[in-house]
Amino acid sequence: MNYPGNAKKEYKKYTNYANRGMDLEVLLNQSNTYYLENDLAVIYKKPTPITISEVKYGAKERIITKAFFRTPSTLDYNGIYKGLYIDYDAKETKNTTAFPLQNIHPHQLEHMKRVINHGGISFLIIYMNNTFFYLDGKTLLDFCKNNTRKSIPYQFLLDNGIIIEQKINPRLDYLKALDKLYFKEK
Amino acid sequence: MNYPGNAKKEYKKYTNYANRGMDLEVLLNQSNTYYLENDLAVIYKKPTPITISEVKYGAKERIITKAFFRTPSTLDYNGIYKGLYIDYDAKETKNTTAFPLQNIHPHQLEHMKRVINHGGISFLIIYMNNTFFYLDGKTLLDFCKNNTRKSIPYQFLLDNGIIIEQKINPRLDYLKALDKLYFKEK
Repeated sequence: MNYPGNAKKEYKKYTNYANRGMDLEVLLNQSNTYYLENDLAVIYKKPTPITISEVKYGAKERIITKAFFRTPSTLDYNGIYKGLYIDYDAKETKNTTAFPLQNIHPHQLEHMKRVINHGGISFLIIYMNNTFFYLDGKTLLDFCKNNTRKSIPYQFLLDNGIIIEQKINPRLDYLKALDKLYFKEK
Repeated sequence: MNYPGNAKKEYKKYTNYANRGMDLEVLLNQSNTYYLENDLAVIYKKPTPITISEVKYGAKERIITKAFFRTPSTLDYNGIYKGLYIDYDAKETKNTTAFPLQNIHPHQLEHMKRVINHGGISFLIIYMNNTFFYLDGKTLLDFCKNNTRKSIPYQFLLDNGIIIEQKINPRLDYLKALDKLYFKEK
């Protein structure tokens, strides 16, 4: 159920958090749990890629005592929705006029291209100016192909992205953007 | 290119390894790299799920100094092949007469069921008696539903699985099993 009044309160709460990156992840994980529990989609965040260097044996379990973060070569989230493979990442910027493309690694763009070529759906969820946007991979790749700019103007997001509704449950109903683009529903 | 003579040598090399679990992972990662580079499929192994407890800042990068392994709630590999979502795991046993079902967590079976219900393909790659088998998720779930046994007899694998060909490249051509089951090709 969607209570607009409460949703606004939740939204304010969100914007007050210090660690925005983590929060967007929390919102998406909660949304994906909702989708899973309501049998709407099967989508998970991938674990953080690390290289394990040292492991010790504790009393009850193995403990990793040295490990390093690796640069991900894919996107953070993937799964299946209405029979289609979906693959996306969550990005945010405090910049108010443009979304810097340095937020996306070149191999991540390459991955998005591959996914789309194989019949999957790839996209970004961008948090900017207190708004959550769905930006389809095809739109992003076209932008990168046709522009030499190193950032996407905010107006481009407003014109070509889809604003994601914030609700109580799911917190970010981003699958609605896919319905709009890929599944023409009443 | 496939050289049967060499493949046999590679195969022998494989069976001599001590850490079989890791080796199966290496074979699958090499196969997935081949599929990716030849634009046949986009399939990755998920990173090992861990809970990070302590991180220190080194001279050049952050170092994880304490972390714990988590039980995975999904399967290790997923991606897209010919427009279909695929999701699988690799398992092996030294048991020669039956594959113990304790190798598969109940939530992993639940995950396979969900993936299939949403139109994806889920399966296991089982290494047993020096042979690699493709076991389709539907066959596995039917077995679990219709049997109270805690293991799958080897004969069942021979009768209901698909033997995966070992080649030079890809090392384990498991997508052929999907072609046979899901894409009727000449």
